[in-house]
Amino acid sequence: MSAPFASLDTPVAIVDVPRMQHNIQRMQQRMDALGVRLRPHVKTSKCLPVIKAQIAAGASGVTVSTLKEAEHCFAEGISDVFYAVAMAPGKLAQALSLRRQGCQLSILTDSVFAAQSIVDFGKQHDECFEVWIEIDCDGHRSGLNVEDGVLVDVARVLIEGGMRLRGVMTHAGSSYELDTPEALQAMAEQERRVCVTAAQRIREAGLSCPEVSIGSTPTALSALNLEGVTEVRAGVYVFFDLVMHNIGVCQADELALSVLTTVIGHQQDKGWIITDAGWMAMSRDRGTQRQRRDFGYGQVCSEAGDWIEGALFNGANQEHGLITLEAADCVDLAARFPIGSRLRILPNHACATGAQFPHYHACDADGDVQIWSRLHGW
Amino acid sequence: MSAPFASLDTPVAIVDVPRMQHNIQRMQQRMDALGVRLRPHVKTSKCLPVIKAQIAAGASGVTVSTLKEAEHCFAEGISDVFYAVAMAPGKLAQALSLRRQGCQLSILTDSVFAAQSIVDFGKQHDECFEVWIEIDCDGHRSGLNVEDGVLVDVARVLIEGGMRLRGVMTHAGSSYELDTPEALQAMAEQERRVCVTAAQRIREAGLSCPEVSIGSTPTALSALNLEGVTEVRAGVYVFFDLVMHNIGVCQADELALSVLTTVIGHQQDKGWIITDAGWMAMSRDRGTQRQRRDFGYGQVCSEAGDWIEGALFNGANQEHGLITLEAADCVDLAARFPIGSRLRILPNHACATGAQFPHYHACDADGDVQIWSRLHGW
Repeated sequence: MSAPFASLDTPVAIVDVPRMQHNIQRMQQRMDALGVRLRPHVKTSKCLPVIKAQIAAGASGVTVSTLKEAEHCFAEGISDVFYAVAMAPGKLAQALSLRRQGCQLSILTDSVFAAQSIVDFGKQHDECFEVWIEIDCDGHRSGLNVEDGVLVDVARVLIEGGMRLRGVMTHAGSSYELDTPEALQAMAEQERRVCVTAAQRIREAGLSCPEVSIGSTPTALSALNLEGVTEVRAGVYVFFDLVMHNIGVCQADELALSVLTTVIGHQQDKGWIITDAGWMAMSRDRGTQRQRRDFGYGQVCSEAGDWIEGALFNGANQEHGLITLEAADCVDLAARFPIGSRLRILPNHACATGAQFPHYHACDADGDVQIWSRLHGW
Repeated sequence: MSAPFASLDTPVAIVDVPRMQHNIQRMQQRMDALGVRLRPHVKTSKCLPVIKAQIAAGASGVTVSTLKEAEHCFAEGISDVFYAVAMAPGKLAQALSLRRQGCQLSILTDSVFAAQSIVDFGKQHDECFEVWIEIDCDGHRSGLNVEDGVLVDVARVLIEGGMRLRGVMTHAGSSYELDTPEALQAMAEQERRVCVTAAQRIREAGLSCPEVSIGSTPTALSALNLEGVTEVRAGVYVFFDLVMHNIGVCQADELALSVLTTVIGHQQDKGWIITDAGWMAMSRDRGTQRQRRDFGYGQVCSEAGDWIEGALFNGANQEHGLITLEAADCVDLAARFPIGSRLRILPNHACATGAQFPHYHACDADGDVQIWSRLHGW
């Protein structure tokens, strides 16, 4: 891969396409075996060639984190789009516009107030929105408690208001805090059980609740059975990252995103290498800080991708990366890592690092590089 | 300002133009009084209307953190551009191209190796590059120690190699760790003294070293005299932010950048408000974490900009902000902060938060909003 790499200005975000394809196959085959549909969350890549590879492998529709992602996917012919952030009333006009163009956009709520605003807006514009109800399965963010009577109230408001209740959804974000197979399996089962129970509560009230959507990459890769679940949403599996590696759901050779950087200086006395990948390239995401291994701003690798143990990416300014070497490795730093030589950095969090770049440089098995643009902003 | 704000989709990055103009005037007047030129660092805004306002107020050229910023400024007629990151040999062709088009681009080095690579490339292409030497005044990052004989070696390599030595430069990045006027004044004096001494060392060796360039926003606003200095580089003063507020170099009513966000949900039992500004909008920058006051992911304000004390922006997912209210403020959260209502968030670090947005929404004194695009990537 060194030939095309040599011509790249740094910093650039490299996607290892064979690894990405492997990751896509791995998740799709797992979901197929568990008998559920996979609706990948495209907030990780925000990149059409990646999304198309997921669809080609068998994904059913997509999950998005912004309506801009929804518009972008729909413009490329992907119609079944789930905007999985609680709907703000002010965004309903944009959602309506997408549906009027033929996009089967579905939206999310977790309160009577927001459900009523969807109903009111839908009636006003003669639109039957497709709506999911968010369930809180682990206390980490939004969603309704399955024991809370409001759950059935929200379903009733939507259905009696003429909207279509697609189902219930949850996201076990707490799985990011775990790192043993046993704990992850237990969290996956909790996510499944709570969300299936929520659907049952609604059905017991005589209301239709066809679908049960769950998912996070750690739980999707840990669940032993998904009885009652109809679809799984997961995102970061497409590239994986060091946070996922610490959690234990991927191997080092499955990390498909890296940042290529150039050595621009040294502080020999301190054992420092200075590079042109600072936080503007890596993001400020320090997601591994409280995990079993703190990778600083990322794992330092050779240009070919081999991990350099003892090289710690400890500091980042806007366009400066500061890598410290263990004392034994500091002898003649400038000869070992000369100015102008290249390193690759594996990111803590692929979603955050990818977002710092207008495009990926996608590298295939033959070492050919293509530029894949990605979305920025809202 | 509420009328145009009401029509904005959130999250958006709001620039308060009167505050920005005040900040520009404040820094320019201070530099004028100290008898030095101001060369603002445009890495903060990456936005032409902001840069033009700085030039209009009296700035002499610009400092950039990427060659893309240099190209962008030069395309708009700003010729005197200092690329203040140590030059990688692989970027020399791009620098040459800019100079061949007439841009008075100057570049930076802190080693004999890199200086020699500039000389070799310059000779090969018959170009006399204008070069600065980076000095380490506080041990925080790159640059040569003023006591190190290599300093004169680098100057000699450049000058005898036919390049033009513009001068020496330093950046007192350690000033970000201080928060008393006395400590800041001492650091400003250290920055000045070390860099002036470096110029003297070169001059004592019989070599020409015309300019002395220093600067960081905290030291620029704290220096009592700048004898021997020819120019100051500072960037974040144009917007200021909570990090600068903690350092003590700006008042709350000088913070010119904020993120407008919408309330999308609550967890009443926990006293949580959920918004549509997560880390994708705020960045993951937690620059106030180790300062005198930790602002979480930013200071929560009303839509009009009044600080809401007791509201802590403690958590951020990609498109979810999680704000916790102190217990006494939690009564009827949904009535006080209804779904669909707006909040404004002051960022920890203006450079990092701005970078998350493709454009700013610039709001003038009459409440009119203009869209100002900004650069993304390299």
